[in-house]
Amino acid sequence: MSQPTAPQTFRAIDVIRKKRDGIELSQSEIEELVSAYTKAEIPDYQVSAWLMAVVLKGMTRPETAALTDAMLHSGEVLDLSSLPARKVDKHSTGGVGDKTSLVLAPLVAAAGIAVPMISGRGLGHTGGTLDKLEAIPGFNVNLPVAEFRRVLEICGCAMIGQTAEIAPADRKLYALRDVTGTVESPYLICASIMSKKLAEGIDALVLDVKTGSGAFMKSEKDAVFLAELMVETGERMGKQMVALITDMDQPLGNMIGNALEVVEVVEILHGAGPEDLRELCLETAGWMLYLGGASKSVAEGKQQSAKLISSGKALEKFRQMVELQGGDARVIDDVKKLPQAQHTTQVTSVKPGYVGAIQCEQVGTACVILGGGRERKEDSVDPSVGIVLHKKVGDQVAAGEPIATIYYNAEAKAARACQLLEASYEIAEAAPSTQRPLIHRIIAKSGEKK
Amino acid sequence: MSQPTAPQTFRAIDVIRKKRDGIELSQSEIEELVSAYTKAEIPDYQVSAWLMAVVLKGMTRPETAALTDAMLHSGEVLDLSSLPARKVDKHSTGGVGDKTSLVLAPLVAAAGIAVPMISGRGLGHTGGTLDKLEAIPGFNVNLPVAEFRRVLEICGCAMIGQTAEIAPADRKLYALRDVTGTVESPYLICASIMSKKLAEGIDALVLDVKTGSGAFMKSEKDAVFLAELMVETGERMGKQMVALITDMDQPLGNMIGNALEVVEVVEILHGAGPEDLRELCLETAGWMLYLGGASKSVAEGKQQSAKLISSGKALEKFRQMVELQGGDARVIDDVKKLPQAQHTTQVTSVKPGYVGAIQCEQVGTACVILGGGRERKEDSVDPSVGIVLHKKVGDQVAAGEPIATIYYNAEAKAARACQLLEASYEIAEAAPSTQRPLIHRIIAKSGEKK
Repeated sequence: MSQPTAPQTFRAIDVIRKKRDGIELSQSEIEELVSAYTKAEIPDYQVSAWLMAVVLKGMTRPETAALTDAMLHSGEVLDLSSLPARKVDKHSTGGVGDKTSLVLAPLVAAAGIAVPMISGRGLGHTGGTLDKLEAIPGFNVNLPVAEFRRVLEICGCAMIGQTAEIAPADRKLYALRDVTGTVESPYLICASIMSKKLAEGIDALVLDVKTGSGAFMKSEKDAVFLAELMVETGERMGKQMVALITDMDQPLGNMIGNALEVVEVVEILHGAGPEDLRELCLETAGWMLYLGGASKSVAEGKQQSAKLISSGKALEKFRQMVELQGGDARVIDDVKKLPQAQHTTQVTSVKPGYVGAIQCEQVGTACVILGGGRERKEDSVDPSVGIVLHKKVGDQVAAGEPIATIYYNAEAKAARACQLLEASYEIAEAAPSTQRPLIHRIIAKSGEKK
Repeated sequence: MSQPTAPQTFRAIDVIRKKRDGIELSQSEIEELVSAYTKAEIPDYQVSAWLMAVVLKGMTRPETAALTDAMLHSGEVLDLSSLPARKVDKHSTGGVGDKTSLVLAPLVAAAGIAVPMISGRGLGHTGGTLDKLEAIPGFNVNLPVAEFRRVLEICGCAMIGQTAEIAPADRKLYALRDVTGTVESPYLICASIMSKKLAEGIDALVLDVKTGSGAFMKSEKDAVFLAELMVETGERMGKQMVALITDMDQPLGNMIGNALEVVEVVEILHGAGPEDLRELCLETAGWMLYLGGASKSVAEGKQQSAKLISSGKALEKFRQMVELQGGDARVIDDVKKLPQAQHTTQVTSVKPGYVGAIQCEQVGTACVILGGGRERKEDSVDPSVGIVLHKKVGDQVAAGEPIATIYYNAEAKAARACQLLEASYEIAEAAPSTQRPLIHRIIAKSGEKK
């Protein structure tokens, strides 16, 4: 008399219990969980319990790769093998004033590398690439895949939002994480980012992992942990990977707000613009060119990128992309054609001294309050509003001297933003003795040339 | 210009995040969470994430008491203050062959203490008091509250199942825990048990926390932890509490199965029956009498209980309760009137020696397989089937000698049960050098007399 054997069906409860008890899940268990959830075969309440167990118990490297892979293959993976160029993209974990994507896509494409960039919208206090692009009148970030591919073939770069076909598991999981306190897990963040980026059909990826008061990862330790996780996960999946740990303890560049950031992008592509933004763009481009095989070293890639800017080729590539995606390219020659806020007001320093620190998240929040980001998901974004900083960390300031200009359309919002901005500046008696570097660290496979 | 202050509305996400990050929740946060969930104002997926965070991060004593209190007050709390007697109940965490409740309710009521007992059904491999009571033809465990109160007033004890009015939050939370891997938390177990027991409007509670191979808490350490938690939670809520840590490394008594257990209850109330079951009944009754003010010490309470059995008063109280709850009291005088299985078969020892150990959970599972418990929630229970053990730990056994008799109605089920029962007995060459005590420990407030 033998015991009847139950059919080996997948049971979500078993996977939840295993993760709760700290037992490593197999690749097939993770695949089945993600696949069943995407098909709505298991309920939200089981997946949210599992997500919380992941947040508190973590994941091994093989589990993280399995989750990334399962989310990636929950939807379409672009096949760009018909394009002869190598495909390279970059991804930033998000910050304040970070408009590098708008510079990098055309700049790297000008070097002959294909940049198939799928980006997101502003999240919390941070800006989003799609919101910035939409500040350009007519620019369409919702191209169908066939049109995305056409733009990419013609000009070497294209920038769109996530389509319904790409990583549907991530969209569903992210919505659940957002309301269940399970966003803050490096493993889940890694799988979310990497599944979407690898769906672009790229050969290499440069990650810009932000750290500091304006980043999601406030501590460098957390940023490095996430960066190493993403680099290793990408490499396990056959991609060339590098991560730059970069500073987000104060805004990047001087302009924050969607149309204002496009202005600064045009400045950089004209060879002008603020030093920190230019330096980060060149460093990232250097890595993208190097991983894309367009230069023998990162240093050579940086030099080449600087030349593509000074020759005007990067700017022309930007113009071409804007036109191909339906945007009004005249804004490049006359930034006044971008949406303009009705009013401006100055925030001044109450005392003389030096800018000791800027609470960067508060600056981002001030821009959200003005209407430049969303307080609720359903909010629309006002592209014209924003902030121009006149003083950054280390700068000397006199009493009553303007530290920032606020571009606004509603008085009450401006008042709140002013107050927050004023509070975000720490004015010290002496200049800070040390400055945080722009690039804290580079995380690459050992033996990678810089 | 002041910042507009958002209304201080309760947000489940904040409570989830706090628990996730190991921050103690306030009483009002826990109250609002339980209240909102009971009213279906927050979704299952948020509560399951919170439950998993509780499983992995634990709860402080004040949080545990707040959760118990919130669950208790999610429904009706009986007001038995019109009854002059002190109200005392007992609760067992569940085991195999544990029929003490059926002995204790009439026994303690015979001493003049009111025992308003609300019990549960079998869970997993363990039996349930309600299933045992229903083995008595006609016995109604679903009395409305008014009728429950009437039986209690007349005879001093009454035994029913949980009503819809009592702790609805527990019913909803338990159903969710069952499917999200969040059952196994002493804090959640404590709140679940205590909220239901305190809804009975009692003055004192004696807990029987089982430990060993047939208990939910296999290790004594876990059993003690849960016991201390429940004792402290009850005391915080103004109840007199004691917990006995008792052995469940082998079945209690010799009979397992609903009708068979009623037979053993009648034996005990007749002053006969197995020694371990009688001893545990007297010890528990001793505590119930002592806490109920019917004796000056636990020892005196035990003596008094023994007398109530030998005088036949406890048995008469049992008869009265059975009659008042619609049961056929003739079964007390003729246990053959209880449901009878059609067949019996013997399980024999394959070799001579001594019973070294009994895998107690397997014995419970064997009874479930026979139909004495539920494999799925919707299953009905066969009251007639079960197991009578002829040998317990330490007993000598000859090769081929019967160790147990199986009472069954279906051949295939009997075969599986036999196999499992056989495998659950460890026959050693020598008698075990030590025996586990029946009562491992008593957990009471310091200074409590024993």
